[in-house]
Amino acid sequence: MPVGSATSPVETYRNAEFSAESDLLAVEEPLELRVGGDEGGAEEAFTLSVMMRTPGQDRELVTGWLWAEGLTDAVDDLAFSADTPNVVTLQGDSGRLRGAARATLTSAACGVCGSGSVERLSVRAAPPVWTAGTLDPALILALPERLLSDQPGFAATGGLHAAGLFTPDGTLLCIFEDVGRHNAVDKVVGWAARHGGLPLSDRILVTSSRAGFEIVQKSALAGVAVTVTVGAASSLAADTAGALGLTLVGFVRAGRFNVYAGAQRMKRI
Amino acid sequence: MPVGSATSPVETYRNAEFSAESDLLAVEEPLELRVGGDEGGAEEAFTLSVMMRTPGQDRELVTGWLWAEGLTDAVDDLAFSADTPNVVTLQGDSGRLRGAARATLTSAACGVCGSGSVERLSVRAAPPVWTAGTLDPALILALPERLLSDQPGFAATGGLHAAGLFTPDGTLLCIFEDVGRHNAVDKVVGWAARHGGLPLSDRILVTSSRAGFEIVQKSALAGVAVTVTVGAASSLAADTAGALGLTLVGFVRAGRFNVYAGAQRMKRI
Repeated sequence: MPVGSATSPVETYRNAEFSAESDLLAVEEPLELRVGGDEGGAEEAFTLSVMMRTPGQDRELVTGWLWAEGLTDAVDDLAFSADTPNVVTLQGDSGRLRGAARATLTSAACGVCGSGSVERLSVRAAPPVWTAGTLDPALILALPERLLSDQPGFAATGGLHAAGLFTPDGTLLCIFEDVGRHNAVDKVVGWAARHGGLPLSDRILVTSSRAGFEIVQKSALAGVAVTVTVGAASSLAADTAGALGLTLVGFVRAGRFNVYAGAQRMKRI
Repeated sequence: MPVGSATSPVETYRNAEFSAESDLLAVEEPLELRVGGDEGGAEEAFTLSVMMRTPGQDRELVTGWLWAEGLTDAVDDLAFSADTPNVVTLQGDSGRLRGAARATLTSAACGVCGSGSVERLSVRAAPPVWTAGTLDPALILALPERLLSDQPGFAATGGLHAAGLFTPDGTLLCIFEDVGRHNAVDKVVGWAARHGGLPLSDRILVTSSRAGFEIVQKSALAGVAVTVTVGAASSLAADTAGALGLTLVGFVRAGRFNVYAGAQRMKRI
């Protein structure tokens, strides 16, 4: 059974008849991210975040999420508890992590910055680096299919998004699937962080989803210069990509695509 | 121009050529939900939540979100500020709203309950009421198309989700579009709340999205007995629907669909 899928009984209606079948569903479970207390007991443990996710790559997911929240240097260690598989405990600068929890409360929901979000993001995101020459449209057109050919969870369930990282010549470096499109990007960034690959200069991020603000936000914070999404971009995603110097390509299908920002990196014939 | 769409310059690649075009993008903007301070100044105003959403139906969105958070009775009034269109101020029981903010911090992110989520949800959601007889599979097959025929924003942009409410005979009562699939459901529930239609007994909720845990959570809290999604269900969505007595139908396409839970409400020939 592919990672991220689980068997479940369903009644399928087909050819005007019901039949009891066994189907593969995308696995969705809550992950609780806890900050550990100190040994003296002066600081109590507390919950920093709870996210719905597809289990299996929690180390990458949590690392990438911490990166997007600007918290990787406040964490020494991720402790995975074997008896409670849906809990990860962070050991580290609990003061800073407590501050982050407060900041989450006062300024954001769901990892999203609030009003003034684009301005704040520009401060945190360094300009992306792209030294790999212009992008061949033929490569752009090929990337979603390369991603799709390596999405076993989606093939099995139809219910998982994917994000993958490519070199400028189109070589796939990593791919992750998740019920949440933002989680899939967090996993890619977390994988890169754990392999010393941040910022993601000269890398192309490809996602199976639409491009909303958060996809661009996470791309920019990881230093990605070129983000390609199968679906359409939102207005704020296009504006933000433009403001941050990111090339945003979307709606890639049937020999066509849109460049919403950063078209100067495309090769003209 | 359809509601929820905005014109944006894009470079379109098609037939091996780039052309500068004007495209319609799904509008995405942050909405800040503030709790007003008291007149004496003893209680300061604060931000309860920030959500990315498609503007235009903020009253429905906020009402539905408050409903899902269990906060509608703590709010007297939604004050919409004309000079800052992306800010809504709630007037009401600021103590309760402050408590909710703390609860959001300690137990949830993104409107998602944490571990123990299904148990907690069962306490809050009353059993759904369905007295309208069995569901004809032909009706189920027709619903996504009826929804799609009333999605002008999606038709224009390809980047908006929709949720609609139907009677048991398939009459459309309301439909809302949004960049966020959960927002679209919140808008439907908010619309119903403002029209005295909660709980949604004998109503079918149809969404253009996949069914994740949160879609089932919001359905259950609004008293929906039958939820139909175009996309696939996650494992937790299926389990939760089963535990709460909700009929969950998904993967509706080309004459087939899956019943993930509550198949006893389907008509057999």
